[in-house]
Amino acid sequence: MAKTNKTYQSALQEQDGVESPDSLSANVAKIIKANRKKQPSVKDLVSGITSGNITALSRAITLIESTNPTHSKKANEIITKCLPYANKSIRIGITGVPGVGKSTFIEAFGIHLTTLNKKVAVLAVDPSSSLSRGSILGDKTRMEDLVKNQNAFIRPSPSGDSLGGVARKTRETIILCEAAGFDTIIIETVGVGQSETAVHSMVDFFLLLKLAGAGDELQGIKRGIIEMADAIVINKADGENIKAAKSAKVEFNRALHLYPAKASDWSPKVSLCSALKREGISDVWTMIEDYTKTTSENQYFETNRNNQNKFWLLQTIEDRLKSKFYNSAKIKVELPMQIALVETGKTTPFAAAEYLLSL
Amino acid sequence: MAKTNKTYQSALQEQDGVESPDSLSANVAKIIKANRKKQPSVKDLVSGITSGNITALSRAITLIESTNPTHSKKANEIITKCLPYANKSIRIGITGVPGVGKSTFIEAFGIHLTTLNKKVAVLAVDPSSSLSRGSILGDKTRMEDLVKNQNAFIRPSPSGDSLGGVARKTRETIILCEAAGFDTIIIETVGVGQSETAVHSMVDFFLLLKLAGAGDELQGIKRGIIEMADAIVINKADGENIKAAKSAKVEFNRALHLYPAKASDWSPKVSLCSALKREGISDVWTMIEDYTKTTSENQYFETNRNNQNKFWLLQTIEDRLKSKFYNSAKIKVELPMQIALVETGKTTPFAAAEYLLSL
Repeated sequence: MAKTNKTYQSALQEQDGVESPDSLSANVAKIIKANRKKQPSVKDLVSGITSGNITALSRAITLIESTNPTHSKKANEIITKCLPYANKSIRIGITGVPGVGKSTFIEAFGIHLTTLNKKVAVLAVDPSSSLSRGSILGDKTRMEDLVKNQNAFIRPSPSGDSLGGVARKTRETIILCEAAGFDTIIIETVGVGQSETAVHSMVDFFLLLKLAGAGDELQGIKRGIIEMADAIVINKADGENIKAAKSAKVEFNRALHLYPAKASDWSPKVSLCSALKREGISDVWTMIEDYTKTTSENQYFETNRNNQNKFWLLQTIEDRLKSKFYNSAKIKVELPMQIALVETGKTTPFAAAEYLLSL
Repeated sequence: MAKTNKTYQSALQEQDGVESPDSLSANVAKIIKANRKKQPSVKDLVSGITSGNITALSRAITLIESTNPTHSKKANEIITKCLPYANKSIRIGITGVPGVGKSTFIEAFGIHLTTLNKKVAVLAVDPSSSLSRGSILGDKTRMEDLVKNQNAFIRPSPSGDSLGGVARKTRETIILCEAAGFDTIIIETVGVGQSETAVHSMVDFFLLLKLAGAGDELQGIKRGIIEMADAIVINKADGENIKAAKSAKVEFNRALHLYPAKASDWSPKVSLCSALKREGISDVWTMIEDYTKTTSENQYFETNRNNQNKFWLLQTIEDRLKSKFYNSAKIKVELPMQIALVETGKTTPFAAAEYLLSL
């Protein structure tokens, strides 16, 4: 577009648009657009995923994460077709407060696993990432070595407005990663809110990363995190920290013994590591292998996965029932009116609920 | 019926029935039956309740507790008519593990309140009572002195198969007690399960009874009970226990300071008492008066009651949505089938949920 001379007659001035560079011909633009639109078929993606093609896997995950109904439909078909190839993995949840060294630990742990010929997928559940508050895993440079590794696949947290949405997407992504041959799935989550409970409900083994003397022991007990943990790993147990880390280990062991025995028959363990110096990392994997052995023998491993599936089935139903009810046009009008009647003592919460349900 | 001589021809012998005593004429039986059926009207019950008639109050509560739909309808009318007279009270929740001395404390506390010209209603939330596992308050002889007191009204926990049902009945009973002029409502609950959370959601002040050195501090922190408490009262602080009680007080004060400030701006207090010796009881009431003053001035008292009403409104809706869905004939057939498909890896929990919701 050539510039034109305009006579501005108003205080509101109009800026000229940015021109297309001359070097971009109309033809080239057409080719680029056509390529963008060329979407692989469900069949292509499934055969790509099951033969371990990372591009196919990434594209299918993008469909899972999309809010476009056509994409969701396609994603559901892919997941159903991948299901027979999934499930053959160990799913490990890793949590810990910011600063505990989760990224460093996962990098060291992931690299160790690849040296054992494992294929490692690292996912995250972080509902805050959609608020661009700085997603965990969002900055892949924090796992520089792992990211370059042929046998590792790292995917940041899907964005979504609710924990429920993020959790569903991550659970579906696990299935695709397993179908693509990843035998070790690591789900990272931040140590806040309900995310940990959601991740605990989708993994086989739940690992809590801690620092010695961080003084947040009460916090962990209060929020039920320690109760969920299959292992507490005290990170940064190096240099001058070693003594404090050792006494923290004693403390945590004592705390763990106050809890009743787990349904898994597994007694949670406490171990020390230095992710930075890559020390104590292989011990963590040995511990997880012990866990898998114990819980496979006593059938807890399979029972737990079945229970998790039932949990997500019921959870999804209940979330949908609620959102359908509260998003109905009638209820959006009537609910605030009933709340006002309750607040002014004109009706009881129970009578108001009856009325709303009768609409 | 006169005895007849029977010749028994079979090994199966028939016993003669019990005869009506001659002294019971047909007329008397009629009168008794008619009196049993004479149910007072809604109007009679409401005017009885609002003029402080205990028989009317008890009868209306029985209607609330009934599973008969006609009774429920009548109960709802009574509650709506009583609402304008309710709400003028302090509602106090009291919890503590079995053996902590809840009954003894409530008796001492209730009697103290009646000497201050208060009218005290004592209710309970104990869903286990329906399983006849021994209801709290079920045995009124445990509060012998209070039970005889003209200004006290004691009602055991309603029976009901779910905590939700018991909680609803208790909340409605609170309204009737308030309309009957009771200005201090005490809700007792056992220190187990979710009952405490339910009671916390229906009271203004939540009091946790403790013993010194019971060693269940972790339990209280873990289950979030300490976080809910507005006061921790250490009972049995008498004789040789005094020293231990005083050091427990220091410990609990320290634990309480680890929690963030409450929305009420009230700092939870720890105090000592001996319910048996009726010592330290008036201090508890003074503390509750302080609380009422603080939270009335900063408007938290009213805000909290409004929030509780909203909570129960939404909770009731969600409970009903779920029970309606799961109790539908179709879902009762299809849900187990979908669970089986999920368990055998034929479908995902999310796809199964979609399917069930589409029925």
